[in-house]
Amino acid sequence: MNTISPAALGEALDALRSRGPLVQCLTNVVVTGWTANVLLAAGAAPAMVDNPVEAGIFAAAADAVLINVGTPYAETVEAMRAAANAATVAGTPWVLDPVAVGGLPWRTEVAFSLLGSSPTVIRGNASEVLALTGGRGGRGVETVDTPESVIGEARTLAGDRDTVVAISGAVDHLTDGDRVVRVANGHPWLTRVTGVGCALGALTAAFAAVSDDSLLGASAATAMLTVAADAAAARTAGPGSFATALLDELHNLAPADLTTRVRLA
Amino acid sequence: MNTISPAALGEALDALRSRGPLVQCLTNVVVTGWTANVLLAAGAAPAMVDNPVEAGIFAAAADAVLINVGTPYAETVEAMRAAANAATVAGTPWVLDPVAVGGLPWRTEVAFSLLGSSPTVIRGNASEVLALTGGRGGRGVETVDTPESVIGEARTLAGDRDTVVAISGAVDHLTDGDRVVRVANGHPWLTRVTGVGCALGALTAAFAAVSDDSLLGASAATAMLTVAADAAAARTAGPGSFATALLDELHNLAPADLTTRVRLA
Amino acid sequence: MNTISPAALGEALDALRSRGPLVQCLTNVVVTGWTANVLLAAGAAPAMVDNPVEAGIFAAAADAVLINVGTPYAETVEAMRAAANAATVAGTPWVLDPVAVGGLPWRTEVAFSLLGSSPTVIRGNASEVLALTGGRGGRGVETVDTPESVIGEARTLAGDRDTVVAISGAVDHLTDGDRVVRVANGHPWLTRVTGVGCALGALTAAFAAVSDDSLLGASAATAMLTVAADAAAARTAGPGSFATALLDELHNLAPADLTTRVRLA
Repeated sequence: MNTISPAALGEALDALRSRGPLVQCLTNVVVTGWTANVLLAAGAAPAMVDNPVEAGIFAAAADAVLINVGTPYAETVEAMRAAANAATVAGTPWVLDPVAVGGLPWRTEVAFSLLGSSPTVIRGNASEVLALTGGRGGRGVETVDTPESVIGEARTLAGDRDTVVAISGAVDHLTDGDRVVRVANGHPWLTRVTGVGCALGALTAAFAAVSDDSLLGASAATAMLTVAADAAAARTAGPGSFATALLDELHNLAPADLTTRVRLA
Repeated sequence: MNTISPAALGEALDALRSRGPLVQCLTNVVVTGWTANVLLAAGAAPAMVDNPVEAGIFAAAADAVLINVGTPYAETVEAMRAAANAATVAGTPWVLDPVAVGGLPWRTEVAFSLLGSSPTVIRGNASEVLALTGGRGGRGVETVDTPESVIGEARTLAGDRDTVVAISGAVDHLTDGDRVVRVANGHPWLTRVTGVGCALGALTAAFAAVSDDSLLGASAATAMLTVAADAAAARTAGPGSFATALLDELHNLAPADLTTRVRLA
Repeated sequence: MNTISPAALGEALDALRSRGPLVQCLTNVVVTGWTANVLLAAGAAPAMVDNPVEAGIFAAAADAVLINVGTPYAETVEAMRAAANAATVAGTPWVLDPVAVGGLPWRTEVAFSLLGSSPTVIRGNASEVLALTGGRGGRGVETVDTPESVIGEARTLAGDRDTVVAISGAVDHLTDGDRVVRVANGHPWLTRVTGVGCALGALTAAFAAVSDDSLLGASAATAMLTVAADAAAARTAGPGSFATALLDELHNLAPADLTTRVRLA
């Protein structure tokens, strides 16, 4: 029996659509446009404010913040620190996406230091999550571990840090240290489109803005993206048309359909 | 009676296609690729030269320049100042897109300082235009005002600065301080695709390069984008396929069709 | 008679798919997402690590490196130098894409200095290649020369530098100084989508990782992209849908189809 119900996921999507949360994104230069389009299609309002002069000011006013360390630069890392601090002070929920941490020392140090600002959710692939518990990291931005193999470490991380850890994979695993949610929707083409995980981090921030239960919010984001992916893959011919259709499906997904189609394992 | 005729808009598009103006873009990291694709589809030649060493050199040789302050950094703001100065000295037409000014102090100061280099056209949403006249700005990158509600301030701004002000919205409003043009084409999905307004700024620069009348050029850019959007929305299922179709429609739009389909209100 | 056989191109694609090389990209901000999507669709694994702290570390471990100078900044140029040096020391194959060199002095100096780190392949348009031999460069990022008109200079450049020079154009020309390969596939819409040449540079790096013969690898990259473009253009209505279909075709192209459809001239 799952601790998060399909009906609750649909209600979370309904709340997202009603409120259209303003999500500040400090993310990598590969996925900025795609991330904004995913948020817009889903019903949120993106704002990419990632310079150190403005990032903290904006984080205090935004409904949620995403910090993704995929392409760090001196100036944007300074902005990430300012945004994380300001979000914590203001009580703005924020999501950490530790892209490729483990193998690369600078971003690993940055990610660990950001952990000190108490992210609401940590979203990554299995190797990235493992790296945050002292593991070795993946191969570039790709994982060499599975959610199943790191869920134990993820539960400990979530419990120790009082956060939610969302691990993307063939079956996504999410935990708040106590409960574990597994979402079995999705398609292999999700790994053939750049930035799907990064955009999921942004969508997770959007749901964090409208959910009192952070595990529910993160689960709704994962469910929404992967349920939309199922529908997109069913009518497309490859990763290009799939990515385009994914935006359409995110836009057109009704809360009731999310409830019906999600496969909680 | 309109001061800009549908036939003149078609002629402007014909000039754009004949001359293929080289448009230098200093724009935000969210929309670079999309902006370049919109310019290429329409018939212009984009070049994103936005570092301080090269920006001024290039602005003196380009056919037009776009400066969009959506994601300012120390280095790119320096490049924007160099490009605006060089464009003014060389007589290169240039467009200012004051993304999210008003609420954020740094970019607001940057935008006001760039105003001193006499932009040929200012293109923004209603809240951004209002902010340039001392108003409060919008919600992130989104407007909380309508073109109708700020057209008075826009006329004053255009008259005082000897420029054209183009305000995007459900009905786009454009003015040179004297004349006012209203374009009623377009579709709500334009607000569900990131960077449509930003790309319109670039397209406005492209038309500025081929139009002696700056209000005509800006109106042609707005008309081209929104007429193409009408056709794209009519055959697509959501914002993803709409954005893809919009590029096709921009590429395939004939001058005569622009003249026929534009709705000047 | 060609020195590279169609069958060898198919075998190179087979090797790419089997090995999924990890390609580090230091590229311009216009094309990051598109480049990653082209690599993913083709079967490679992109990683955009372009900061000076991490670029050299990553280049020593990556299977191949792309360095594209399209939008240089102080920090990313430093990263490019670190990556090129580390790649050379580690024996990692790497590709130089000299975007818009010739007309702009800073990037031209950067490109010439990177030449000292012995790129495995240089990929550019005809004007860019000519600029590397002392010529004047093109119009922004567009060429004003043809591959046919610069193949002599390209052969000299390739011979002098012990590298392969790949020149994109209506008929692509590639040479190692001795042999010359001509690929006649492709479609004019390739010039109406931003970053196709840039993505070809990244794909060239991917094939360099799996090919002992660098001319064969570069030819396979060009053949794969242009054969896929033929198929994409045949079923689409403009540059937007063409770009989407190109990703699908890259993903679905079988080695045997590459061998059959390539037109070596």
